[in-house]
Amino acid sequence: MTINYSNGKKYTPLTTTPKKLTSLKKMSHSKRGMSLEDDLNDSNRYYLAHNIAVVHKKPTPIKIVKVKYPSRSQALITEAYFSQASTTDYNGVFKGKYIDFEAKETTSSTAFPLKNIHEHQLKHMLQVHEQSGIAFVIIRFTNLSSTYLLDIKQLHYYWQRMLNDGRKSIALKEIEATGHPIILGYHPRVDYIQVIKNVYHL
Amino acid sequence: MTINYSNGKKYTPLTTTPKKLTSLKKMSHSKRGMSLEDDLNDSNRYYLAHNIAVVHKKPTPIKIVKVKYPSRSQALITEAYFSQASTTDYNGVFKGKYIDFEAKETTSSTAFPLKNIHEHQLKHMLQVHEQSGIAFVIIRFTNLSSTYLLDIKQLHYYWQRMLNDGRKSIALKEIEATGHPIILGYHPRVDYIQVIKNVYHL
Repeated sequence: MTINYSNGKKYTPLTTTPKKLTSLKKMSHSKRGMSLEDDLNDSNRYYLAHNIAVVHKKPTPIKIVKVKYPSRSQALITEAYFSQASTTDYNGVFKGKYIDFEAKETTSSTAFPLKNIHEHQLKHMLQVHEQSGIAFVIIRFTNLSSTYLLDIKQLHYYWQRMLNDGRKSIALKEIEATGHPIILGYHPRVDYIQVIKNVYHL
Repeated sequence: MTINYSNGKKYTPLTTTPKKLTSLKKMSHSKRGMSLEDDLNDSNRYYLAHNIAVVHKKPTPIKIVKVKYPSRSQALITEAYFSQASTTDYNGVFKGKYIDFEAKETTSSTAFPLKNIHEHQLKHMLQVHEQSGIAFVIIRFTNLSSTYLLDIKQLHYYWQRMLNDGRKSIALKEIEATGHPIILGYHPRVDYIQVIKNVYHL
């Protein structure tokens, strides 16, 4: 299904219907949904089609070592490696404001391990915050089907705590207290823009 | 040379000194500088180190077809192709505002060919503009050593003209009249943020 808007934009929801899903075997209740990345990409396409926000996932950074040219038309990469991202995965604009975030899932039901965030990503989000941009992480507890937005200032607090006393994760209770729940729906599936509006008063 | 700032950030200017450059053979006057991309990356590192702006070049989008795992530690990509970017090359934040741009060089001394910009990039910049973000192109005439910032609204005007009367380029004179010159310096080499401040009143 593709929705054509009068402004020439299109929005194609992913075709994973509940009917299809139930036909898949060995699928636990908590995994009926798509991955957080799928949900975010779908939500971002919804925002784009409805002129709500322009947010894209950045391409995966790859270090190219060898390229061949078997035909004139297309270069063939024959040796390349994944390289570490120097920033976060998502950024874009909402009402003129710069927004920037990293999205992570955990199978833990009690805490979010901080090893999911790289130090350079934390630094990048702090730089964005210093520049008055909006920076946060979206954390999903897959087994609980719950998703939260946690501002960079809070994340930074827990990161500092790790450096001070070695505590390497954020307890779910702490995320419930200092983060903001994102309600899951259909269109968009992960309406984080709604949460941003409230949290950052936009 | 690396400059260490008290805030823990570093700024390493590219080590292409005039001395080095003059030792290179067959280098015309106009090509003594680095490429526009090198200049922009250097300028963005300068902005980052001085807390002026946070702007990064996005990774090149690549479609991965085959991956091998010769060792546990590292995945080896053995077949991949360059894929077309759906957005622009650069985006980031300045004073909380979202900025987004594409950078292009031309060897023409009289006009900028519009084929340098892809239609989806134009659309993306229009979407950013609708969302109150700042979108523009940076155009360098390499043989003239001159660089301009052209706002998306102007670019859109010339694009529409192309669709109407088939004129496939923007004359240098038009860019001089409707764009904004970017003075080239040392640190930063391409001070486009200074131009943004004036043009968009930030």
